[in-house]
Amino acid sequence: MTEPRTPGRHFLQIPGPTNVPDRVLRAMARPVIDHRGPEFPPLALSILERLVEVFATTAPVVLFPSSGTGGWEAALVNILSPGDGVLMFETGHFAAMWCEVGRRLGLEVELLPGDWRSGVDAAAIESRLRADRHRRIRAVAVVHNETSTGVASDIAAVRRALDCAGHPALLLVDAISSLGAMEYRHDEWGVDVTVAGSQKGLMLPPGLGFNAISERARAAMAGARLPRSYWDWQPILSANERGFFPYTPATNLLFGLDEALTMLVEEEGLEAVCARHRRFAEATRRAVAGWGLELVAQNPEEYSPTLTAVMIPTGCDADALRQVILERFDMSLGTGLGKLQGRAFRIGHLGDLNELTLAGTLCGVEMGLGLAQVAHQSGGVMAALDYLARGDRE
Amino acid sequence: MTEPRTPGRHFLQIPGPTNVPDRVLRAMARPVIDHRGPEFPPLALSILERLVEVFATTAPVVLFPSSGTGGWEAALVNILSPGDGVLMFETGHFAAMWCEVGRRLGLEVELLPGDWRSGVDAAAIESRLRADRHRRIRAVAVVHNETSTGVASDIAAVRRALDCAGHPALLLVDAISSLGAMEYRHDEWGVDVTVAGSQKGLMLPPGLGFNAISERARAAMAGARLPRSYWDWQPILSANERGFFPYTPATNLLFGLDEALTMLVEEEGLEAVCARHRRFAEATRRAVAGWGLELVAQNPEEYSPTLTAVMIPTGCDADALRQVILERFDMSLGTGLGKLQGRAFRIGHLGDLNELTLAGTLCGVEMGLGLAQVAHQSGGVMAALDYLARGDRE
Repeated sequence: MTEPRTPGRHFLQIPGPTNVPDRVLRAMARPVIDHRGPEFPPLALSILERLVEVFATTAPVVLFPSSGTGGWEAALVNILSPGDGVLMFETGHFAAMWCEVGRRLGLEVELLPGDWRSGVDAAAIESRLRADRHRRIRAVAVVHNETSTGVASDIAAVRRALDCAGHPALLLVDAISSLGAMEYRHDEWGVDVTVAGSQKGLMLPPGLGFNAISERARAAMAGARLPRSYWDWQPILSANERGFFPYTPATNLLFGLDEALTMLVEEEGLEAVCARHRRFAEATRRAVAGWGLELVAQNPEEYSPTLTAVMIPTGCDADALRQVILERFDMSLGTGLGKLQGRAFRIGHLGDLNELTLAGTLCGVEMGLGLAQVAHQSGGVMAALDYLARGDRE
Repeated sequence: MTEPRTPGRHFLQIPGPTNVPDRVLRAMARPVIDHRGPEFPPLALSILERLVEVFATTAPVVLFPSSGTGGWEAALVNILSPGDGVLMFETGHFAAMWCEVGRRLGLEVELLPGDWRSGVDAAAIESRLRADRHRRIRAVAVVHNETSTGVASDIAAVRRALDCAGHPALLLVDAISSLGAMEYRHDEWGVDVTVAGSQKGLMLPPGLGFNAISERARAAMAGARLPRSYWDWQPILSANERGFFPYTPATNLLFGLDEALTMLVEEEGLEAVCARHRRFAEATRRAVAGWGLELVAQNPEEYSPTLTAVMIPTGCDADALRQVILERFDMSLGTGLGKLQGRAFRIGHLGDLNELTLAGTLCGVEMGLGLAQVAHQSGGVMAALDYLARGDRE
């Protein structure tokens, strides 16, 4: 760390980890407390009570000291047995990675092919489930908001696909880059396990994984034979009843989560949080349109409120653009992942963010496009500002 | 958190999580950085380079966003297959819990019985290994410093037991409450996997698990068939080469670890750190002797430098004593775990600690013994102070 000082605040505009509010960082800087002492349960219970609101559920939510990837693994090992069939849909890089986790754990994962530019095809899910006469498929696992493409999927439609096919598979949803930033309804959508992480909409550093667990998912634990210990929901659910954890929790991240929930649930309110994200996403897309660039997402009804992935004209290198922007303007943007490497970049506009930070972000992109000599029109920033200045809430 | 304010600093004298230095808390309060950006590898590489010194190894050390419990699971799933034999020794509660993790993962764990007052019986290990003619035992897993009893085991002797028996089992060691506070030598002792956590000698909040991995352990991965994904060493080792991680690391804990390593390795020096812990443990034991109370640890050569577990006279309740001390003096002590529940309490004297904090700790115990009407002699504090005041470094 002997680099020369870069003045001012870094613009962390990747689609997570997101900017952590100073209040949350300060809350995390409290001295550690005894996780078996009397000060701990009020903290844990206050968190667990308010966390369910973010998932829109009455079901319990389990926390792990882990990344979101750990939440993926936990969702699978608690309800499945070796060789069980799992149906996934290739919305992009993260769907493919979750599929890979399932395969490594010994599951028979079938990944329905997608074009990385649109969301889950609920009709394809339904028709595959109808063909599964022997009920080999025990779970359908989809990504709500595909962080590699900026495409959001209609989870209610996936639920209807299961119901129309009359198939008993459990529905697992990755809400890692959606939760706490866009509408999410665990109960209403009939989701059995929702997977989330701390470092996106929840405005925390990475280090906490989450599973919201339906009654049916809990019931499935009894027959699930994949080995599990660290990820086992049962000891956590039991200990949580009195506000404790079966092993040492990530105490200081819990301090941060407590503060973040106060900010999101009590102070700003989840509806306002979601409206803000929709508005910032719209402003960003207007900028992209103003530049004459193409979105990765193809269907307007699937545009992500939390990030925008932008295609770069053929012959240009998206990573060279990101490099120029980082060096000149101290802003991090998301790289193109997997098959989008070099062909797209991603603007994260989720978490603790206001109009002027978004405006600065878009200005950095516009200046970077010029410096990196990426063919584009000017006017993107102004189109976004015109929209933002109006201040209408949608 | 509407409790009335307790003035001054809480005394967190459980055997971990330990007190986190303000410098480390402040380091953790830095804004999150892009874990795939250019600022990240210098941080990660500087940590990985200095971390090996703490383990006294040239082998790689792998980090997980997890508790120490996660480190236990990782050590097992990377090198073993379902049904493999594992030999453990019941030094106390944590050895029994590691055994339980192994069983849940589908391993055939044999737990050699212990009395919870002494360390690993290397002769018993050797004789059990000699009897294992079919080489069913694939790993020997022991706890270096049993946090429930304050008993440290001689790992070099366990290594000699394997060698004398001519048995090829891998040697796994839990160094969770020893690393960074007492002498630990991964290479010299021929350990194959060392498990550690962030919240003890490393002076960090909980949330990081560690595995130091010998060449033989790495080689064992190829044949290990327990399913693994999150805990898989290989993707981490590969990504670490360039200073990255395969999934989102717990960035802010890494900021803290970076600072803690500067303090431990560069500023104080590991030898001085270990000497300090030995001295504080000796002072604590002199206090216990002064009170006329009995240690849980029976053999002087096995006394732990990082915590002291104290038996309470029959008819008294150790948790009632802890309760009085917490309420009157705002100090947390460790409870008696498992079969020591109510019969013993534990004084943590590891991590970021100086003479006067230790003195305050012992004063709190002495006053508490009086208030809780636990039969004891006074004079414990003075015996400790006499020793500490002399200032001789052992």
